[in-house]
Amino acid sequence: MNQEDIGISGKTQINVIQYSEKFFQEAYIEDLDEFSPVTDKMRVTWIRITGLGENEKIMKLAEKSNIHPLTLEDILNVDQRPKIEEFQNYTYIVLRVFDFNPSEKELQSQQISIIIGENILISIEEKINEAVQRIVDWIRTSRGIIRRMGVDYLLYLIIDVVVDGYFLVLEKIEDEIEALEDELTMNPTSVTLQTIHKLKRQLLQFNKNMWPLREVIGTLERAGHRFINNQTIPYFRDLYDHTIRVLENVETLQVTLSDMLDVYFSAVSNKLNEIMKVLTMIATVFMPLTFIAGIYGMNFKYMPELELTWGYPAILLVMLAVGLWMIFYFKRKKWI
Amino acid sequence: MNQEDIGISGKTQINVIQYSEKFFQEAYIEDLDEFSPVTDKMRVTWIRITGLGENEKIMKLAEKSNIHPLTLEDILNVDQRPKIEEFQNYTYIVLRVFDFNPSEKELQSQQISIIIGENILISIEEKINEAVQRIVDWIRTSRGIIRRMGVDYLLYLIIDVVVDGYFLVLEKIEDEIEALEDELTMNPTSVTLQTIHKLKRQLLQFNKNMWPLREVIGTLERAGHRFINNQTIPYFRDLYDHTIRVLENVETLQVTLSDMLDVYFSAVSNKLNEIMKVLTMIATVFMPLTFIAGIYGMNFKYMPELELTWGYPAILLVMLAVGLWMIFYFKRKKWI
Amino acid sequence: MNQEDIGISGKTQINVIQYSEKFFQEAYIEDLDEFSPVTDKMRVTWIRITGLGENEKIMKLAEKSNIHPLTLEDILNVDQRPKIEEFQNYTYIVLRVFDFNPSEKELQSQQISIIIGENILISIEEKINEAVQRIVDWIRTSRGIIRRMGVDYLLYLIIDVVVDGYFLVLEKIEDEIEALEDELTMNPTSVTLQTIHKLKRQLLQFNKNMWPLREVIGTLERAGHRFINNQTIPYFRDLYDHTIRVLENVETLQVTLSDMLDVYFSAVSNKLNEIMKVLTMIATVFMPLTFIAGIYGMNFKYMPELELTWGYPAILLVMLAVGLWMIFYFKRKKWI
Amino acid sequence: MNQEDIGISGKTQINVIQYSEKFFQEAYIEDLDEFSPVTDKMRVTWIRITGLGENEKIMKLAEKSNIHPLTLEDILNVDQRPKIEEFQNYTYIVLRVFDFNPSEKELQSQQISIIIGENILISIEEKINEAVQRIVDWIRTSRGIIRRMGVDYLLYLIIDVVVDGYFLVLEKIEDEIEALEDELTMNPTSVTLQTIHKLKRQLLQFNKNMWPLREVIGTLERAGHRFINNQTIPYFRDLYDHTIRVLENVETLQVTLSDMLDVYFSAVSNKLNEIMKVLTMIATVFMPLTFIAGIYGMNFKYMPELELTWGYPAILLVMLAVGLWMIFYFKRKKWI
Amino acid sequence: MNQEDIGISGKTQINVIQYSEKFFQEAYIEDLDEFSPVTDKMRVTWIRITGLGENEKIMKLAEKSNIHPLTLEDILNVDQRPKIEEFQNYTYIVLRVFDFNPSEKELQSQQISIIIGENILISIEEKINEAVQRIVDWIRTSRGIIRRMGVDYLLYLIIDVVVDGYFLVLEKIEDEIEALEDELTMNPTSVTLQTIHKLKRQLLQFNKNMWPLREVIGTLERAGHRFINNQTIPYFRDLYDHTIRVLENVETLQVTLSDMLDVYFSAVSNKLNEIMKVLTMIATVFMPLTFIAGIYGMNFKYMPELELTWGYPAILLVMLAVGLWMIFYFKRKKWI
Repeated sequence: MNQEDIGISGKTQINVIQYSEKFFQEAYIEDLDEFSPVTDKMRVTWIRITGLGENEKIMKLAEKSNIHPLTLEDILNVDQRPKIEEFQNYTYIVLRVFDFNPSEKELQSQQISIIIGENILISIEEKINEAVQRIVDWIRTSRGIIRRMGVDYLLYLIIDVVVDGYFLVLEKIEDEIEALEDELTMNPTSVTLQTIHKLKRQLLQFNKNMWPLREVIGTLERAGHRFINNQTIPYFRDLYDHTIRVLENVETLQVTLSDMLDVYFSAVSNKLNEIMKVLTMIATVFMPLTFIAGIYGMNFKYMPELELTWGYPAILLVMLAVGLWMIFYFKRKKWI
Repeated sequence: MNQEDIGISGKTQINVIQYSEKFFQEAYIEDLDEFSPVTDKMRVTWIRITGLGENEKIMKLAEKSNIHPLTLEDILNVDQRPKIEEFQNYTYIVLRVFDFNPSEKELQSQQISIIIGENILISIEEKINEAVQRIVDWIRTSRGIIRRMGVDYLLYLIIDVVVDGYFLVLEKIEDEIEALEDELTMNPTSVTLQTIHKLKRQLLQFNKNMWPLREVIGTLERAGHRFINNQTIPYFRDLYDHTIRVLENVETLQVTLSDMLDVYFSAVSNKLNEIMKVLTMIATVFMPLTFIAGIYGMNFKYMPELELTWGYPAILLVMLAVGLWMIFYFKRKKWI
Repeated sequence: MNQEDIGISGKTQINVIQYSEKFFQEAYIEDLDEFSPVTDKMRVTWIRITGLGENEKIMKLAEKSNIHPLTLEDILNVDQRPKIEEFQNYTYIVLRVFDFNPSEKELQSQQISIIIGENILISIEEKINEAVQRIVDWIRTSRGIIRRMGVDYLLYLIIDVVVDGYFLVLEKIEDEIEALEDELTMNPTSVTLQTIHKLKRQLLQFNKNMWPLREVIGTLERAGHRFINNQTIPYFRDLYDHTIRVLENVETLQVTLSDMLDVYFSAVSNKLNEIMKVLTMIATVFMPLTFIAGIYGMNFKYMPELELTWGYPAILLVMLAVGLWMIFYFKRKKWI
Repeated sequence: MNQEDIGISGKTQINVIQYSEKFFQEAYIEDLDEFSPVTDKMRVTWIRITGLGENEKIMKLAEKSNIHPLTLEDILNVDQRPKIEEFQNYTYIVLRVFDFNPSEKELQSQQISIIIGENILISIEEKINEAVQRIVDWIRTSRGIIRRMGVDYLLYLIIDVVVDGYFLVLEKIEDEIEALEDELTMNPTSVTLQTIHKLKRQLLQFNKNMWPLREVIGTLERAGHRFINNQTIPYFRDLYDHTIRVLENVETLQVTLSDMLDVYFSAVSNKLNEIMKVLTMIATVFMPLTFIAGIYGMNFKYMPELELTWGYPAILLVMLAVGLWMIFYFKRKKWI
Repeated sequence: MNQEDIGISGKTQINVIQYSEKFFQEAYIEDLDEFSPVTDKMRVTWIRITGLGENEKIMKLAEKSNIHPLTLEDILNVDQRPKIEEFQNYTYIVLRVFDFNPSEKELQSQQISIIIGENILISIEEKINEAVQRIVDWIRTSRGIIRRMGVDYLLYLIIDVVVDGYFLVLEKIEDEIEALEDELTMNPTSVTLQTIHKLKRQLLQFNKNMWPLREVIGTLERAGHRFINNQTIPYFRDLYDHTIRVLENVETLQVTLSDMLDVYFSAVSNKLNEIMKVLTMIATVFMPLTFIAGIYGMNFKYMPELELTWGYPAILLVMLAVGLWMIFYFKRKKWI
């Protein structure tokens, strides 16, 4: 069977992977009636479910595995916030993966549910996730220390690839912001303002994912969680550090966007100043000139200048001088 | 008796429902003198009171049920905040249901008081509430697991339908905000500003309900509350999650409204810029032209141009050229 | 002696009330030398002092009653914040009553000091307070449950009437704000801005009273305070609820005032826009017309239009057309 | 020796005061080699050092008194924040006294270090402080209860006079703000804006002193500090109250300054509105009039009005009417 | 070997320093295969690594010293935040040193990793750091108390020189801000605005370093850390004070920058006011004058003034009077 076919919308694939340092076995479950989730003290059992099209499959699996109805509900309603919930025989963890669509300037997110028990981990991806797929390959090819570690290290790896994905998303948003900064200097319009606000809201939404996620990882990092080995805790501590770094990046971007609002309003004000400068210059040059012309348009009988042969060119020169003086004045005021 | 008649303003209906997995009985109490609230270890007793018109009925019931005078006062004064109060033999909980009136753009709220004791729950609705009515029907038709669960699950269900109602209210406010966003782009007036402020205040008021409600549910969710079974705690935890999601939605709407203030002020500034552009264009085109006309309106004796046959059309062409050049200049500056 | 005379500025009246369910006695102490504060296990003793004119009286009483010098200092310096202080044989509580002066738009406040001990309560009012006076009448006429309760219930009642007074003060401020809102829409001036700021500061000052008061009541409400019966705790819990409601009202008013600043600045901007519209309309109508008149004011020899009999009326019609077209253009732009 | 000479810049005076209820002795130490700080269980020993000019004296004293090198460093570097540090045999406290210079609108501050041990207190003033000097006089003249109390009361008194000084500083700043408010209404310039910002920063700096000071006093007020008697704790509690009141005053001033920024920007906007009104009025009056004059300046052959004897005065009257009507219009719009 | 050659980009130098009160030995390790990190109870061993060019060297050293792979990863990825992490046999600390580049107005930072164990300290500098180099000299020349203290004092010294460096960085930023303040008063442009924003972001980034650093030092300062002697704790407490002072300086600079935004927008508004004043003055002077000229340009037959000999000079005088009166009016309004 071609792996690329897994998780196409509507299809639900169940993949069972069992491994230990020397052992690796992978199976696709088609008929759930025949399947029973057996765990093995010597091996890690990973049941990976991708795609949420055929919910009856998941329901059947949940029933066989003694999953609480509320957990099942949370798995199927894919708008959960990251959280960690302890149940009698398992811990339930919700993660979200994000993608940023640059054309719509919108974050899209999918849910990954993880159920971790003694030597067993069940993961449910809303759509097949490339990053989690890579972990399967690492196990298969025995890359790193994964084959030597327990199910808690597998949990760590899954959360780790998810958090690594956040950095990529933030980079995409950062590119968007940089493009916006150019637009802001060149030609700020009300569309620019709306884009700033939209990105701000996307980051807010992203942040709303990060805070509970940080709590989730914090819970796992603290010594004493029943499914986490002391030996694996440094890895979760490292993960915790990463989430803080993500949060700091988000904050930097948020501050940048706030600053851009300042710049936007400054740009609008400066534009007004530019317009008013043009108006003032025109008025200041032509009003005195028109006044002079007006004087010699008066019909007084005795206006000696009018009789002079060189009156007309003289007055044109006066006008030219007034105009040039005005322009010189504006140059000195740095308006031109 | 027709159920639609219950709770019409002024009337107070008392409805007693008793149920267990196999048992269901419903009665309307008319004469409180003959009634005594008997609880039954095997059954859940739900006394549902709707409408606060005939307070003497409620007072009588409270006296018979050993309700503290302060609780009675809180039940009858329907402007309480959500709260949970422990008394010797019962726990008193206040909830608020909201409705959003789009024409007045105002939140209206009603109070639901709940008294929960051993196997008994007394609910008092200010006006009959559709959502609570539905629970009666679920019990009657034995929908879900309600008939198998205790009085704590009934409490959960009532709070759950109330919290679900909040999502609907927020959706209505969101629609309002979207309509406002269009208005903001098209034709922002000071009325738009006032509407933004009004919606902001409605959300603030709504938030003031949510924070204490979260505390109420948090109290119920923590293990060890005397009337809550360990088995029901996951349901309250789920409820707690819902309230957090409501709060996040409110926050998103609040940020959106704040952004709209930015947009409003930007729109007002842009409008000024537009007006000034028109003025500047008119002045910039006509001031030089009027000046030229002024020159040839002067009465100097020796102005050779005036004598030329083609002087007049030539000067008209010059004026046309100056005007067109100005228009070309504005086009290049993207003012037109 | 006429009660209205009590507490006139400068006079200090000392009133001793003793009561139990069946007993009531009231006395005015003139000569402190003969007086010794005797408490009676079966009765509540309330020493009510009104007016801070004759401090030597209070000092003498304090000495006789073993009041700490620092407490005495706090009683006489009437600018204390609400606070609760435990001393060896009594608890000292400071409250503030407020009044809002609408003409000056200023809050005025007076201090009420309370010393509560075993079966005895000493209250010191800066000026005679109407609300506390009402409690005396309730005791005298045996209204409510006061005569059956201990000195802790008396303490509750005094704080309760004080807090109830806050709601009235906030209503007065709210009226002021509403009047201001009309002014803001009609004719906002810099006086409006100053009034908004003044009210904001009054609310801030009021809030500074509320936060420590909340702490005071919170301390009394928590189980285990030596002078508070468990039976009276629900009343203090109720009081705590009231203070939270006062705080929420204050917050709502503060947000309203902040919004009004937005509205004010928007109004100032809109006014500028209005002015600029008038200017632009005038300029846009008359500049082209003046230019046309300027053209036919030129002195070219060969201007055929000038010779035509219908030239003048024709050009007037052209001018009229241009003017009307401009007005039509403004109508379409919704400037008029 | 004249006390006014003490603490002149550069000089370091060491003054040893010993007192009990019946005993008072004061000495100036010139030769530190002969001096050894002897404490006496029955008496309080206060070593008061003023002026930080001759550091070798202080170093010698510190060595003799077993002062930790880090404490010595903090005493000599006079830019410490208020703090309290416990060492093996003493507690080290840093205070700051402030002065506000109205002409420069700047806060100046000096450091007072206090070392308190069993029956001994060493105070080090950067410059001689008037307020601390007064305490010496109180001890000498046996004012108040100081002579009956221990070294902890002396500590209280020193901190008390320091905190009392803060109220004076705030009053000076308040005067400055009031003067600024007048300037803001009369003639706001960019200097006004800079002064507002400067005062805001001074208050911020002042606040940075207050928060750690509050912590210092809070530490002393809590029961159980080794050098503080239970009997003196109420005095420290009183002091704590004072610091809170100082903080509230600072906050009020900060809010006032923030409001003044609003007023400033409103004033700048209003000024623009005023300017634009003048421009608009002039343009609105003279543009139509100039247009009318322009019409009768046209050179059409057949303009019947020009031939009429009363044409000129008639048109002058029309112009007058138009001008008056415009002025009436502005009056109605309340522009004049 | 010339020390200036150490740490040139790409090169990794390993320097081993061992010292006690009487002993000092320094060695450069070239061949790591022969090296084994021996600690000596009587001596402090400091392995100082400078330059991160030859990572294989560091990897080999880490392997020999039982450094956890995650620590090694953090050492080599030089974008860590300050942190402290406990491992089984060592504590891992990350610091950052900063430099401010005035021409680019950008902070640059490098990482210093410290591994502290029993009597041994390994420091890894991204690039050779001058301040740390100075410590080597102090040890060599036995300056201060370093030779008498343990490895914890060495840790203190390293952090101390790093924190001292922060004050220098802040001073550079302060200089930048002062230069900016002048620019703001003279000629504010949109570049000024961008520089303000850039500096704000640099300070934000700097602050993000300070908060976790404060936590690191706080952890070391609290009694009971396994590698910190009680005797050294006062030094760490002193260090903690310094970080708070750095944070306060940052905050002051941040407030200054925020204020500068106010000033910038005020300057832009004032510029508009200036422009509008010029326009209004020109229009107000020349519009009435042009109107007067327009009147006497009318062609009415009977205009008696036109016939008068002194008509023309008289009207010129009238115009002059009007102009002067206008200028006087502007002077009174303080526009000129």
